[in-house]
Amino acid sequence: MTSLAVAPATTRAPRVKETDVLGSLTKVCEAHGLGEMSRQLVSIGELVRWDMAAIEGSLSGLPLRADVVGQSAGHLVDLGGKRLRPMCVALAARLGSGFGPAAHELAVSVELVHCATLLHDDVVDMGDTRRGAPAARVVYGNAASIFAGDWLLVEALRRVASAGVPEALTLLLDIIDEMIRGEAVQLESRGRLDLPASTYFEIVEAKTAALFRWAMVAGGRAGQLSASHLNALERYGRHLGVAFQLVDDLLDYEGQDHVTGKQPFADLREGKMTYPLILALERDASLRPLLEQVVTLGADAVLEPTVGAGLLEAMQRTGAAEESRGLARERCAQAVACLDALDDSPAKDALITVAHATVHREK
Amino acid sequence: MTSLAVAPATTRAPRVKETDVLGSLTKVCEAHGLGEMSRQLVSIGELVRWDMAAIEGSLSGLPLRADVVGQSAGHLVDLGGKRLRPMCVALAARLGSGFGPAAHELAVSVELVHCATLLHDDVVDMGDTRRGAPAARVVYGNAASIFAGDWLLVEALRRVASAGVPEALTLLLDIIDEMIRGEAVQLESRGRLDLPASTYFEIVEAKTAALFRWAMVAGGRAGQLSASHLNALERYGRHLGVAFQLVDDLLDYEGQDHVTGKQPFADLREGKMTYPLILALERDASLRPLLEQVVTLGADAVLEPTVGAGLLEAMQRTGAAEESRGLARERCAQAVACLDALDDSPAKDALITVAHATVHREK
Repeated sequence: MTSLAVAPATTRAPRVKETDVLGSLTKVCEAHGLGEMSRQLVSIGELVRWDMAAIEGSLSGLPLRADVVGQSAGHLVDLGGKRLRPMCVALAARLGSGFGPAAHELAVSVELVHCATLLHDDVVDMGDTRRGAPAARVVYGNAASIFAGDWLLVEALRRVASAGVPEALTLLLDIIDEMIRGEAVQLESRGRLDLPASTYFEIVEAKTAALFRWAMVAGGRAGQLSASHLNALERYGRHLGVAFQLVDDLLDYEGQDHVTGKQPFADLREGKMTYPLILALERDASLRPLLEQVVTLGADAVLEPTVGAGLLEAMQRTGAAEESRGLARERCAQAVACLDALDDSPAKDALITVAHATVHREK
Repeated sequence: MTSLAVAPATTRAPRVKETDVLGSLTKVCEAHGLGEMSRQLVSIGELVRWDMAAIEGSLSGLPLRADVVGQSAGHLVDLGGKRLRPMCVALAARLGSGFGPAAHELAVSVELVHCATLLHDDVVDMGDTRRGAPAARVVYGNAASIFAGDWLLVEALRRVASAGVPEALTLLLDIIDEMIRGEAVQLESRGRLDLPASTYFEIVEAKTAALFRWAMVAGGRAGQLSASHLNALERYGRHLGVAFQLVDDLLDYEGQDHVTGKQPFADLREGKMTYPLILALERDASLRPLLEQVVTLGADAVLEPTVGAGLLEAMQRTGAAEESRGLARERCAQAVACLDALDDSPAKDALITVAHATVHREK
């Protein structure tokens, strides 16, 4: 009968520093000569650096048990990541009454939900690497990763319940339902080269954009924003989420391995047709045999150099890459336009910069 | 942005009738000449038959989507089962103000949580059969079962949130946390023949008894019982849960295949040492090679007849089986004693009968 007893937390040195969160984006902007955006990112840093440091502190201080399930959860959470969803919560809260304890719990929770889905995804996809390191399932096994995902979900919901922000918990349960629907559609579409673009966007809206929507709405509710402002923030989150995923899809083959932590065309090797691949095949049907060769290889197969080069060339030649990037820019612009409803403030400026930076990220 | 839209529910014919829930227990009692208990079971049937029918109606009317995840969830839920946990909720509520809509939602939820854990357990254990039928993971795949488990959990929490019973949701989150801890300890103990009995009971308390505790407390809260009565019910649930698991462990090799739906010694083949096995090995160390032969076979391996017969003989000869059964009886008696705190009522009589019937069940 120890349900309420807290097991001793394992002591873990956080591997992510608060400066990493925006640092990589700043570096990218500098490298691209985007001086203005680089300055804006520094100013976001000033606005939310302590929020993000506090969130990171909670993430590295999770009450994980020393068993294999706790280690599996800790392994993934400690690998870091962009922490973009918690930042959305923090900035949304700062649009209103500020980043208080409730917003803090919601920000931690959104990252825990994200990590829970990654743990289950890695088991489902049999992925061997995650964030440039061995996936938790490789280190601690599939079973531990399944239960670790369950635990992170429960811990997230517990924190949302404790935050006491009206509707935040029931909205999150609806959002997770939607995310699972996205997983289901993706599962049923696996290996399907003729995936319609509409199905691709259905998956992205549900699997990725839904949680961004919640991050914005939950943060906004913690900041006591009005219904119309919450509505604007939800739309911002939706566009940002879609843009984020489009860039992710491009980085799946454009990114440099040491930055993204993945081998190119991992999505395709897992049987997932992304938007740029759908466009390329639409425009050049002769690509089908090449795609068929890759689609069943598995996430961790090594691609033959000629096959990889052929695919890369086709993405450029058909204009699929450029159009995908263009759409990502467009969705970011739509995200920014949603913020028109809000008065000017440093947090609003920061959300505008986050949207632009999302398109320019390299991992 | 369809998070609040309800997908059309698939129409499914319920495979479990309300009469099945107590019918099999009644038959067992009749077969054992337990005429009095058989009569008591019939009277429970009269008390909760409509409650159980309503619960079954909700279970067969879950808003499942037609995709592979929804089908996977529906497959398991429709296979039926004893529905003992929902019955605990219903009877606990009937000890107080009665079985209203809130208790109904909690009763449905406890079964959904149970089903969620079974789906994830079957993936983890690579189990091929469940409730005498192919496991959902065999029919719809591991991936669909993982997401189906996630979905059932979310649906359960959503219903508990909507029930509006104070503390029910946060208590359930704590209970699921405890169940995951049980899974973790079991995972780390896998294949360990020298498992201490104390660790076995730690696993059982967390993995099995915790959810029975919640069923009793949540039902009692829905019935607006006092804190001292809730405390008594929680202790009842704990003892009942342990007794239930001890009988389950015995049925793992004593049960007839066509009744339990499993081949004998499945637990051992999955690397799980149960209480009777722990006792047998403690009393006869020469059993070790025989156990070692079985412990890594896998849940669905066919046991050599001589090995199975040797193990069965040892369980009888060492008295391990009889002592396990004795402990189950003892825990049931302790469960019943917890009810002393409550005034006499038909619901109390029913809970007493449920405890006794748990020891006499054959599946």
